[in-house]
Amino acid sequence: MSKFYGIGTGPGDPSLLTMKAVKTLEKLDIIYTPEAKKEGKSLALSIVQEYLPKNLEIKQRHFPMNFDRLEKHEAWDQIALEIETDVKKGKNVGFVTLGDSMIYSTYVYIMERLKGKIEVETIPGISSFSNIASNQNFPLVMDKESLVIVPCTTEEERIDFALKNYNSIVLMKVYKNFKEIIEKINQYNLMEHAILVSNSSLTEEKVYTNLQEVDKNQISYFSTILINKEQKVS
Amino acid sequence: MSKFYGIGTGPGDPSLLTMKAVKTLEKLDIIYTPEAKKEGKSLALSIVQEYLPKNLEIKQRHFPMNFDRLEKHEAWDQIALEIETDVKKGKNVGFVTLGDSMIYSTYVYIMERLKGKIEVETIPGISSFSNIASNQNFPLVMDKESLVIVPCTTEEERIDFALKNYNSIVLMKVYKNFKEIIEKINQYNLMEHAILVSNSSLTEEKVYTNLQEVDKNQISYFSTILINKEQKVS
Repeated sequence: MSKFYGIGTGPGDPSLLTMKAVKTLEKLDIIYTPEAKKEGKSLALSIVQEYLPKNLEIKQRHFPMNFDRLEKHEAWDQIALEIETDVKKGKNVGFVTLGDSMIYSTYVYIMERLKGKIEVETIPGISSFSNIASNQNFPLVMDKESLVIVPCTTEEERIDFALKNYNSIVLMKVYKNFKEIIEKINQYNLMEHAILVSNSSLTEEKVYTNLQEVDKNQISYFSTILINKEQKVS
Repeated sequence: MSKFYGIGTGPGDPSLLTMKAVKTLEKLDIIYTPEAKKEGKSLALSIVQEYLPKNLEIKQRHFPMNFDRLEKHEAWDQIALEIETDVKKGKNVGFVTLGDSMIYSTYVYIMERLKGKIEVETIPGISSFSNIASNQNFPLVMDKESLVIVPCTTEEERIDFALKNYNSIVLMKVYKNFKEIIEKINQYNLMEHAILVSNSSLTEEKVYTNLQEVDKNQISYFSTILINKEQKVS
């Protein structure tokens, strides 16, 4: 029976795909991917490239990244409708999404429009924060500790709240307000407990253990900070 | 050069191993694993079984699970010393750990004893909560939302704090105080936003969308609850 598959690709290194993701990619007839930005193909697509079947049809579609709710909803409605039509024609349709499928992923908006109409199977992926922690041998949480994951696009007081009330904090999407975030980490005396990684697992990966010395223009949109008050960064 | 590898196995289904984990398992000379409980082998070892090389030496060691700090520290010291010796003899030594390597994993205690003495490489794995979310098409966090992961072995007020202050909450290790946890979810009117999965991705997997009807004896030690106030469980 044909299905719609959402596939988490992990942070960038193709070897971080799960076996299940690879097996799923191999049986796809069609893959949907966000339209290439200016040049080249989307990052998610390039990660899975080596595992794609020969006769796969690639459908690049425009996903608006602005704040126009209506424009975004119309785009998602349209793409979901196209996918529904393809699956009902008997095609196995895939959608690849960076990191984990259920954590800050546009895939969710497509999935929510298709649940109940066609078969939907989602395959998890390695999150960037999980990969960074392992690569740096930097434990996230142990025993009775809690972990909070905060996108720095949220209200400032939500970031303060997490830094005050939790020992382990993952700060995602740090690019936009980078200077303010670094100041905040300094203000809470957390510099020696924090690590910053830009482009985790990609060839352009950069690891910073001294956040004070990092300038915004050194890092990419894909940058994450891990903080653990129980750990000291060496 | 020989190394010590920590390998996250994911929640149980071998196909949730990453390609990197599989490639790493294939080059091991020795694998350390917690001693089998009464009968059979450890769960982590059984997950990776099909990918182990033929001449691999399996060293089962006793990991105390009690609250005697000294006994635990002595056991970890001893195992770390053995691993160090093996790696210095030129062996590639592996340690497999359920879920993700940096989230509530005993592996961390071994790793911390070996960092700086020998080469240590850690490979991330799919967390149970990530797998549950994908399998159930249950989004964890979107846009500006934060996610908090709380082990229910922590102080009760820390659980209340998370339930009050966050929209997306993962409750791990729910087995021990299961009745109290369910009462708490009810008290916060979160029943329709919660999903419980026992033995995620194993053949014994059980999914519960009506938590009120679940009795502690139906679930296993490996049980996790996902709550998202933005989602309704159908």
